[in-house]
Amino acid sequence: MDSPGAADRRFICAAIAEAEQGMAEGGVPIGAALVVDGQVVATGRNRRVQQGDPIAHGEMDCLRNAGRRRDYRRATLYTTLSPCMMCSGTIVQFGIPRVVVGENATFGGNEEFLRSRGVEVVVLDDARCQALMRRFQQERPEVWAEDIAE
Amino acid sequence: MDSPGAADRRFICAAIAEAEQGMAEGGVPIGAALVVDGQVVATGRNRRVQQGDPIAHGEMDCLRNAGRRRDYRRATLYTTLSPCMMCSGTIVQFGIPRVVVGENATFGGNEEFLRSRGVEVVVLDDARCQALMRRFQQERPEVWAEDIAE
Repeated sequence: MDSPGAADRRFICAAIAEAEQGMAEGGVPIGAALVVDGQVVATGRNRRVQQGDPIAHGEMDCLRNAGRRRDYRRATLYTTLSPCMMCSGTIVQFGIPRVVVGENATFGGNEEFLRSRGVEVVVLDDARCQALMRRFQQERPEVWAEDIAE
Repeated sequence: MDSPGAADRRFICAAIAEAEQGMAEGGVPIGAALVVDGQVVATGRNRRVQQGDPIAHGEMDCLRNAGRRRDYRRATLYTTLSPCMMCSGTIVQFGIPRVVVGENATFGGNEEFLRSRGVEVVVLDDARCQALMRRFQQERPEVWAEDIAE
């Protein structure tokens, strides 16, 4: 058996791997993974830069990659960064009951919205996620501002 | 000069044309158009069925087709049907200040969320939009239930 939180720390690694790939591609380094019944069923990463697609946030790319499903109620969505309002609305719309967030020190604010709609939000305060976002925000401030519509 | 509301009734036609194309393709008949400074800059339609993509609601497809932009603050989003929570969250995240909805008789509920975030919501009560959705909901109830995560 995993110790408490060990499964979350394991699954967030799948999201971090996507974020690191995004960084290597010159993109916004945010990744996500969808886990159903203890299995990763899809991963994704922000591809705004790579695909010129403003809706391709990490969580959205992951849900797109996961295809049409009927098991969202048994799912946990892992994301390296606290979800924006688009992704938070999507989590609520899809009926995903649990979100595990790598960190919300570099961006956040929708945790209370999610909780008010019945979504469990766990924040891991993961140092790797924070370091990746801090480096990106310093190196590419204009892309980051665009991604959060500032 | 257009009479009051005439521009909205003209632009919603671009969204209705997309919805009709979606119906003809066997998809969910919901369409959208993004208008900036009095010009249609992109249109889109729900492509869940056509592309197997659960995030491809009409509004999302339209915003994807519109590409990376910096003019959302001057935009109006036209949609044949009242936006779901995913699309409403996206409208707020992108900073789109105005949404014109073809109808909200067959689906709705996020108008107050949008207004609480400062978005102007206009509902046209368009009979063509209602007829299209009613026909779809009767003919394909299982696809409709999936699209709204029921």
